[in-house]
Amino acid sequence: MLLSDLLPHTLREAPAEAEVPSHRLMIRAGLIRRHAAGIYSWLPIGLRVLRKAERIVREEMERIGAVELLMPCVQPAELWHESGRWQKYGPELLRMTDRREREFCFGPTHEEIITDLIRNVVSSHRQLPLTLFQIQTKFRDEVRPRFGIMRAREFLMKDAYSFHLDEDTLAETYTRMREAYERILERIGLDYRVVEADNGAIGGNSSHEFHVLADAGEDTIVYAPQGQYAANLELARAQAPEGERPAPGAELEHVPTPNARTIPEVAKLLKIPAERCVKTLIVQGSEAAAVALVLRGDHELNHIKAARLAEVASPLVLLDAEAVEALGGLKFGSIGPVGLEMPVIADRDAAILSDFCCGANKPGEHYIGVNWDRDVDEPAVADLRLAREGDTSPDGQGTLAFARGIEVGHVFELGTRYSEAMGAVAQDDHGAERPLSMGCYGFGVSRVVAAAIEQSHDKRGIIWPAAIAPFDILVVPVGHGRSADMLGAAERLHDELEQAGFEVVLDDRALRPGVMFKDAELLGIPHRLVLSERSLEQGMVEYRARTAESNEDIPRERIADFLRERMHPPE
Amino acid sequence: MLLSDLLPHTLREAPAEAEVPSHRLMIRAGLIRRHAAGIYSWLPIGLRVLRKAERIVREEMERIGAVELLMPCVQPAELWHESGRWQKYGPELLRMTDRREREFCFGPTHEEIITDLIRNVVSSHRQLPLTLFQIQTKFRDEVRPRFGIMRAREFLMKDAYSFHLDEDTLAETYTRMREAYERILERIGLDYRVVEADNGAIGGNSSHEFHVLADAGEDTIVYAPQGQYAANLELARAQAPEGERPAPGAELEHVPTPNARTIPEVAKLLKIPAERCVKTLIVQGSEAAAVALVLRGDHELNHIKAARLAEVASPLVLLDAEAVEALGGLKFGSIGPVGLEMPVIADRDAAILSDFCCGANKPGEHYIGVNWDRDVDEPAVADLRLAREGDTSPDGQGTLAFARGIEVGHVFELGTRYSEAMGAVAQDDHGAERPLSMGCYGFGVSRVVAAAIEQSHDKRGIIWPAAIAPFDILVVPVGHGRSADMLGAAERLHDELEQAGFEVVLDDRALRPGVMFKDAELLGIPHRLVLSERSLEQGMVEYRARTAESNEDIPRERIADFLRERMHPPE
Repeated sequence: MLLSDLLPHTLREAPAEAEVPSHRLMIRAGLIRRHAAGIYSWLPIGLRVLRKAERIVREEMERIGAVELLMPCVQPAELWHESGRWQKYGPELLRMTDRREREFCFGPTHEEIITDLIRNVVSSHRQLPLTLFQIQTKFRDEVRPRFGIMRAREFLMKDAYSFHLDEDTLAETYTRMREAYERILERIGLDYRVVEADNGAIGGNSSHEFHVLADAGEDTIVYAPQGQYAANLELARAQAPEGERPAPGAELEHVPTPNARTIPEVAKLLKIPAERCVKTLIVQGSEAAAVALVLRGDHELNHIKAARLAEVASPLVLLDAEAVEALGGLKFGSIGPVGLEMPVIADRDAAILSDFCCGANKPGEHYIGVNWDRDVDEPAVADLRLAREGDTSPDGQGTLAFARGIEVGHVFELGTRYSEAMGAVAQDDHGAERPLSMGCYGFGVSRVVAAAIEQSHDKRGIIWPAAIAPFDILVVPVGHGRSADMLGAAERLHDELEQAGFEVVLDDRALRPGVMFKDAELLGIPHRLVLSERSLEQGMVEYRARTAESNEDIPRERIADFLRERMHPPE
Repeated sequence: MLLSDLLPHTLREAPAEAEVPSHRLMIRAGLIRRHAAGIYSWLPIGLRVLRKAERIVREEMERIGAVELLMPCVQPAELWHESGRWQKYGPELLRMTDRREREFCFGPTHEEIITDLIRNVVSSHRQLPLTLFQIQTKFRDEVRPRFGIMRAREFLMKDAYSFHLDEDTLAETYTRMREAYERILERIGLDYRVVEADNGAIGGNSSHEFHVLADAGEDTIVYAPQGQYAANLELARAQAPEGERPAPGAELEHVPTPNARTIPEVAKLLKIPAERCVKTLIVQGSEAAAVALVLRGDHELNHIKAARLAEVASPLVLLDAEAVEALGGLKFGSIGPVGLEMPVIADRDAAILSDFCCGANKPGEHYIGVNWDRDVDEPAVADLRLAREGDTSPDGQGTLAFARGIEVGHVFELGTRYSEAMGAVAQDDHGAERPLSMGCYGFGVSRVVAAAIEQSHDKRGIIWPAAIAPFDILVVPVGHGRSADMLGAAERLHDELEQAGFEVVLDDRALRPGVMFKDAELLGIPHRLVLSERSLEQGMVEYRARTAESNEDIPRERIADFLRERMHPPE
């Protein structure tokens, strides 16, 4: 193809709002164009990339026997009332009213629609299990749309749903879907992690997220480089401490700690390591007005874990200074479990301490030599803390490292949450009507394009993974504005390579060589061929891979074979 | 593929709301499923058809050099304010407000978005001409969504836009687009007409509609079967009457016509043919309060033509009985041009009459022997009437026939309407900035599927044109519930035909033969192969084309060759 036909629109500068590399580069390379916050057009070159990602996703869905359908963008509120999500979903749901005053939303996801479909179409176990998918435009009215395509409001998503009457086939489909996602990410050529995810809000059993590793990722991934374990930081289990709690060795002692309120200040003042101090956080209880959570001084509370405790209100509410003071005059900076009149839950690493230090529930005073059981009632014990880099992996294999990730996929075992609410049942093989078990499986098709750029770029531009590059080869004729011969030679090279099965684009814009080379690097097409008067005379073509720093001269007649070897090296 | 994997869902009855064959058959065959008025899911078999239509449209767009992009569904109101359409578009535009109280709409069309894009990306004549297209989901909040996919609210459309600095390339692109549409409809195998269309509301020059002929069509198409002429009835020109007006031959005479108000009643009472009577309609003027339109008694007013007259208000307003009475006591049933104190415009066929009959502007009275000039001032003359079947074609080639049509495509020369309103300009080759000329070209991808069914079905079901059939071949094993051999034989046949390059679906549902045969006819797959115990024993397969009334026994080993010949007969 001719580059001039593809609405090329490269820019030297990115807009100020573009904070991350993929956003900057997608705008600068002219792949997308913004119309409103989080709402973009895909220009022709960008759309080629999107379609390649889409094709890979579709092929891998079909490979595992998922069948494609197409559901509507505009969804009637009635169905969302049935599932109970019309209220729950909140302002991320873009709502609208039609000319007859009926309420609709622009679908951010399709559980309601697919369940409406299936309850009308499926009635027997003979039709199950069943996995359906679509690749379709979605809308989420993000509170802060940003990062371009990565957190756009309108986006392209593959969403799949599976239906079952038994847990075995659900587990099997879940596993096959996980494997399909791994193949998709491997085919695109991305470094990713599958992590355990939170599905508390949705209910059901398993839930995994697929994260492409990149500095711009909004999530922190905890993983063991030498092992299998990986989880979202919000969910990462901490390893239980080993051994027994030592017997008390010190007397309980009351010490003044004026002006020392934080753990580092107290530890420094008292010359006690933070690991031997505890911090006490007061949160709203599910039944009690307040619950105390006790952690080791050097550990941080994991809010998700805390909110899952039966005693604690969900979502988690940390009481503020005023509310804490109302509980018998407590003040931040001197709270501790000794004599506290409320349920106390200690993290496992705090519960195993003896002779520790804690606030004395009076401003400017702490205790040292505190021991559970002797000085304070034995607390309830739970995993409450955030995992840390260097922790032993919870499965014992290696130590944990952190990385930033971009979530591109999410698989859930939904169970019967929607089918029970909406009456999607089928007869099992004994003739009994039972609600269907469901799985749901999302993959961000537009987002994975941005994620690929985050993972693969340099300061000059995009470096496309071969599988989603808009073209394999860019042909750049130098000085063709001055010579018709040059354009003719470039066209012949282009046509010949196209006939050999490559996807080729010819930069026919007759710009200065420097501009064309800069655009070539910005656009990131994997293989570049330059024709110049010198090379033509010598019967050569200048080749450079996007990742290389210098040119290679390749004989003109060998170029197709050379490129084939480069793209598909013999194993 | 196995039919059981495709979510088959055939019904004996269609819902009562389904008024037209395509709607009934698409529901009964399980191609679509309704979620709300005018909002449907495409089930897997239906989606295969939709994708085939989409592919044909895409290929023909690419063949004429149009380049694909993808614009958003959700469009900011600001752009529609710029074009002036936010107010004008009316309740068909589905409007919404996001969480920050900004207004948006679900795009029914993309002139604003593409113009926003192009004004930012195109600046020079060197980037022109340019034709871009997308295949994308649109929404129009129809006042009366009906006919299933044919007049759905959410639908799939191909919309293309071209940009030019000169009229020559616009005309050229317009012609190429027309030809592309003709190729699309020919490839799908539809009987269609390209008709002159009204583009008054949009402005610009040429405008043509593409209508698939079908009884359920909502438009009346006027065309000359022996000639080239075709137009929407609303726009069809009437041929000017030949010859001169005869000289007056009768005296003006006042006749009582009690109880005769309509033309047929008056004509019968007075024994005068309706062709020698005139009817007088009173409409709102653009400046005058009222204007009289005079037509021959057997002719009907064309509202579009009338509204285009400078003297007449647009849109056309026919005055009601009360308003007419206020004009000096006029009453419906006795109005005529003689002595009428308002501008009078006569259709050409009324203006050429002499010695005619008309109302006397008094209830129960008419004039006969009326002559223009002698008894009434010469009227203004215009083409005011609807064309009629049997009229001479306005180009003189043959006579006009009527047909019902489903509009599946529309091409417009938009001119500079959007580019001027929104500031889309480019430098011409003299360095002067000029507004871009635009063309826009819509094609209803989902609608053409329904139109194909309207044109190709029988009482038993759909008869797919080969190009968009969901499969080429349906294999039906009879009695495979009783015999594993039978299913094995059917699977071998299926696999073999798939490997030979056919698209094959195997009905593996183990239903009674009668049910499978009925479904086969309903689903309309062009070629059906039945395996029965008898045919297996004899080494034969029973073949039947969807359009045939009886089976042919084909030797099993010849079946692939036989099907190849049937599908691609030697020329």
